[in-house]
Amino acid sequence: MRGAVLYGPRDVRFEERDTPRIIKSTDAIIRISATCVCGSDLWPYRGISPVRQPTPMGHEYCGIVEEVGSDVRAIKPGQFVIGSFFASDNTCPNCQVGYQSSCQHTEFVGTAQAPVLRVPLADGTLVATPDVPPDNLIPSLLALSDVMGTGWFAADAANVKPGSTVTVVGDGAVGLLAVLSAKQRGAERIIAVSRHPSRQKLASEFGATDIVTERGDEGVARIKDLTHGVGADAVLECVGTQESMMQAIQSTRRGGYVAYVGVPHGVELNGETLFYAHVHLHGGPAPVRRFLPKLVDLVWNGKINPGKVFDLTLPLEQVAEGYRAMDERRAIKTLLRP
Amino acid sequence: MRGAVLYGPRDVRFEERDTPRIIKSTDAIIRISATCVCGSDLWPYRGISPVRQPTPMGHEYCGIVEEVGSDVRAIKPGQFVIGSFFASDNTCPNCQVGYQSSCQHTEFVGTAQAPVLRVPLADGTLVATPDVPPDNLIPSLLALSDVMGTGWFAADAANVKPGSTVTVVGDGAVGLLAVLSAKQRGAERIIAVSRHPSRQKLASEFGATDIVTERGDEGVARIKDLTHGVGADAVLECVGTQESMMQAIQSTRRGGYVAYVGVPHGVELNGETLFYAHVHLHGGPAPVRRFLPKLVDLVWNGKINPGKVFDLTLPLEQVAEGYRAMDERRAIKTLLRP
Repeated sequence: MRGAVLYGPRDVRFEERDTPRIIKSTDAIIRISATCVCGSDLWPYRGISPVRQPTPMGHEYCGIVEEVGSDVRAIKPGQFVIGSFFASDNTCPNCQVGYQSSCQHTEFVGTAQAPVLRVPLADGTLVATPDVPPDNLIPSLLALSDVMGTGWFAADAANVKPGSTVTVVGDGAVGLLAVLSAKQRGAERIIAVSRHPSRQKLASEFGATDIVTERGDEGVARIKDLTHGVGADAVLECVGTQESMMQAIQSTRRGGYVAYVGVPHGVELNGETLFYAHVHLHGGPAPVRRFLPKLVDLVWNGKINPGKVFDLTLPLEQVAEGYRAMDERRAIKTLLRP
Repeated sequence: MRGAVLYGPRDVRFEERDTPRIIKSTDAIIRISATCVCGSDLWPYRGISPVRQPTPMGHEYCGIVEEVGSDVRAIKPGQFVIGSFFASDNTCPNCQVGYQSSCQHTEFVGTAQAPVLRVPLADGTLVATPDVPPDNLIPSLLALSDVMGTGWFAADAANVKPGSTVTVVGDGAVGLLAVLSAKQRGAERIIAVSRHPSRQKLASEFGATDIVTERGDEGVARIKDLTHGVGADAVLECVGTQESMMQAIQSTRRGGYVAYVGVPHGVELNGETLFYAHVHLHGGPAPVRRFLPKLVDLVWNGKINPGKVFDLTLPLEQVAEGYRAMDERRAIKTLLRP
């Protein structure tokens, strides 16, 4: 089969790779219905996270189960399934408290930009939809594999509840879906930080009530203005830079909540600053698996349409253009169909 | 009157200071029944936080109201009162959500090692006991002014609840009272990190079930051993150094809670490390005022005896010896009687 391989900065190739097969008795092999390019793929694509060798790419996926290992019980060939980027057994102590992305036996699922994928720990990792979905649901189901689950985790980690005033820092797909998640959880006011008209528009569609274009200290001042000088109850940091993290912390009211769900790059938090900011801080790799059953239900019943973040759809063989479009911010998120 | 003044490293003097008087109409003047030396007083005493000019000291107090300003309504002369080190109006948006130590009109109450004290925002800051207390309750009531309220905040911020496995890093008065707080809140297992026999003994009296003497990575390994490799549900960091903070974060289970209540000194948290630790982090200056009514009730009814942390009582005029004894770790905490 042919799949995406990153060779170095801005060098993604679509080339021959071994077709995956069952290695462990807990594996499943799935035929990908759709995969996509993640904002986090841009870190190595841009050379910020170094790539030391040709690296197969992709960690978002949904598709039809083709084969399962001899110890797989719950997942069966023919099912349409979605899984997270971290495989998890869903039984270890970390999984049991809902932190499947820190499963004691986790494996990263990182070769999904391809027609066929091996998923380890299939019973713990994969969630099947009630039936094989109609084609129009596929983008939204695919979004659950990472970006929607991550946006939802941000809202959960920041304790967003009915009536909350929420700020979302970051207008990538995760940030936009954090807006959608906050709205679903009953937030009354949602301030989206975005400078891009097309993203502002989608943020508003998803439930943003205010748009702030300023960043850094100016952004903080603007958010304070909008919240009577107090700050937001919950701030969802969906970028991962020092500036965005500090904007998030300083925009939060005392006793409020900051969630951070983008891998921090070069972020250092000063203990004393954090101490006097008086915020709750929680984040990490989103335990998407915890939320999958609920989110599948919301998509299946037409309650949410997170697939709207895909504003570019390409055949998988044009994966390089998919990366380019996102790198140049011509696209919010690229969906790829094998 | 005469009170404590810090001139520089290890130079505390007991000398003539102006007797406080009402300055604002919301002030109260109280005659101190007891005050004490705080672990945080040792930072400037040791020269770690520089002292730029002779500085009156002391931020823990209880006593009898002598006089109130014309706008004070709830607090009356003759009452026995306790207050926190941060005066608070108890009505601003930060106070209303329970973060009185970040009151928008806060003032630091920092001249309490003296016979008489001016307390700003008296109605919001002070809590009166049901009656003038018997002498034997005074140490425990004084402890509520800071160390007990701070230990309680640590347990609250770390979400300690019935059945929790808790670790307390730090065996100063705050750490010991964090043990007591965890016990009161129903923790099943309480691991105290302490190397000092007298402090270990008090930790055990307060409810510690295990003692760990190792620090840093060894301490983390030991706590992991004691928790089946998973880590504690809640870790209460009561020191404020880089080592103690990292020990706390690394000893916590994924999805668990770290509270930090000692002012961080030179602490820098790496964003990526924190991200993958997957912990909840909350702390700051303890909003003692939030907890005072409940804690006064617990002391008044003999449910807790936090005054046990005072293992040295001196007349106020010997305040310099009170600092020395704590600096040299001959005393856990010094109570001073004017």
